[in-house]
Amino acid sequence: MIDVNDKAPSVLALSGGIGGAKLVLGLYHELAPWRLAIALNTGDDLEHMGLHVSPDVDTVMYTLAGESNQHLGWGRASETWSFMEQTKRIGGPAWFNLGDGDMALHVRRTELLNNGAKLSDITAQFFAAFGVQAHGWPMSDQSVRTIVETVDGRRLPFQNYFVEERCEPRISGFIYDGATGAQPSSSIIDTLANPDLQAVVMCPSNPFVSIEPILSVPRVRAALAACAAPVIAVSPLVGGAAVKGPLAKMYKELGLKPGNAQILRHYNDFADGFVIDHADAAEQLELGLPVLVTKTVMSNLDDRIDLARSVLDFAKKLAAAKKPRQMRSGG
Amino acid sequence: MIDVNDKAPSVLALSGGIGGAKLVLGLYHELAPWRLAIALNTGDDLEHMGLHVSPDVDTVMYTLAGESNQHLGWGRASETWSFMEQTKRIGGPAWFNLGDGDMALHVRRTELLNNGAKLSDITAQFFAAFGVQAHGWPMSDQSVRTIVETVDGRRLPFQNYFVEERCEPRISGFIYDGATGAQPSSSIIDTLANPDLQAVVMCPSNPFVSIEPILSVPRVRAALAACAAPVIAVSPLVGGAAVKGPLAKMYKELGLKPGNAQILRHYNDFADGFVIDHADAAEQLELGLPVLVTKTVMSNLDDRIDLARSVLDFAKKLAAAKKPRQMRSGG
Repeated sequence: MIDVNDKAPSVLALSGGIGGAKLVLGLYHELAPWRLAIALNTGDDLEHMGLHVSPDVDTVMYTLAGESNQHLGWGRASETWSFMEQTKRIGGPAWFNLGDGDMALHVRRTELLNNGAKLSDITAQFFAAFGVQAHGWPMSDQSVRTIVETVDGRRLPFQNYFVEERCEPRISGFIYDGATGAQPSSSIIDTLANPDLQAVVMCPSNPFVSIEPILSVPRVRAALAACAAPVIAVSPLVGGAAVKGPLAKMYKELGLKPGNAQILRHYNDFADGFVIDHADAAEQLELGLPVLVTKTVMSNLDDRIDLARSVLDFAKKLAAAKKPRQMRSGG
Repeated sequence: MIDVNDKAPSVLALSGGIGGAKLVLGLYHELAPWRLAIALNTGDDLEHMGLHVSPDVDTVMYTLAGESNQHLGWGRASETWSFMEQTKRIGGPAWFNLGDGDMALHVRRTELLNNGAKLSDITAQFFAAFGVQAHGWPMSDQSVRTIVETVDGRRLPFQNYFVEERCEPRISGFIYDGATGAQPSSSIIDTLANPDLQAVVMCPSNPFVSIEPILSVPRVRAALAACAAPVIAVSPLVGGAAVKGPLAKMYKELGLKPGNAQILRHYNDFADGFVIDHADAAEQLELGLPVLVTKTVMSNLDDRIDLARSVLDFAKKLAAAKKPRQMRSGG
């Protein structure tokens, strides 16, 4: 007898927006319905024109629904732009583009939040409306915002740094504002404690601005460390360069050499395995944990599915070898 | 020497949305730039999905900018509808249509109001952005909302009555909620007191839901009564029927016979002249004030301009004969 209500995920992916969503899509294709859950970064959410915008949440949802804008690399496919045209005309802010159909999510989300709904419940409602049969869990229902500190002493909310200032300012650090007082998603914490969980995947997102915000929420890092399933990190760097985005620039501005060793420093208290690109095969022996060398650049859907399959296979191998965390600690 | 900053209006029109805006457009064509001011009804404003929507204000603005949607009869020309499509999809409210470009006004207006700006200043900014060289003055910066009372004991905000319930409920009365505590637009009050004002025009809007809300704001009715310029009311009824909208139905449900005598009862404490259609010429002797019989149905732009010209000519004749109000009261 099949329990149609059994939607417990077997894989939890931690993801930011565009880069991470590629692997999330591969996992979504590989897994049966409802077996995938995604811990979603809300550190780059913003209040814009009075609306609550959740860029990474929406990017992952559009991607899984098959409705992401391939041409732009963000937003909805077949989008129209009347709202922005008129907004610019009346002197509204022009630096952050909002598509007409995309606006429905922001306006409705803001309305529901102001009526007391939780971001997690709203997200579940939107995922269902888009027919996405995976769990999308914002890292917290409270506000945790990534703030970029610059060498000239400014503190820029992430989207202002990323979109308005095109990642140009030299950075000196990051703040995850609000993290201390935030509660983690109970779905994420419960899933990490579930003995039936088969794998946790750190998607190839920017650690500073996509994954660290999730890890900054209290109890998440500890839950990852205590998780019985293998935790696999997929490197977003290839040959010391990011496929897309400012990650390599960030490391350099912080005085660090961009590379897989740096990536691993973000995750070394809980990672069981690490996935790097063929281009970096020479590094594998230095990394100090099981490494899978494969093609990590995902140019098309086949690449996404291939990488997802490799990551899941790697997790299976590691699961067979993984000792319970408490024994390792004690050993 | 021409004072380029002299934008004092010579004509003040009181108007609701679609019907009133037709004559406003005619007046706008007839008058030199900045000589027209419009007292705008905000009684049918609504908070929808957390946004402040001002339907009559926007209808007048789109009309004067030449950007009103001729096909729909409301909203923007060349509008797109992605926002509504996606809103319906995610379970948002579907009863009130918001066009994509139109949304820019609602979102920006709401943002600015929440930042402490006044509706009057926001409206002036929008009119300027649309290149409208007339003054658009919301009747008040405070909330005054038209509530429709029904025979079954409900109190419906106007848009719920008008759009959601398609004017179907039988009405028993109207409430202008908030009027008692509202301040009138100082521009409207000052203009009515200006000795250089040449005419006040009550546009052929629905008295109950377009003009009475303006008159419900404290000091407006008294300022009209004290106004030195002739006040001309243009009837929205032709042969006892409204050109568009529920006005005749409203009178009947209140036990009143729809007709020009009823229209005049709304304005009899300040009207100096009344404009009715040829179809009602037989009534002119019974009305007890100077009457202009002309074509009031406006099917095209020429009709609008012709009626505007007739109304302004009528005002000129009445101005020559009008005695100062205080003398008439004393006489």
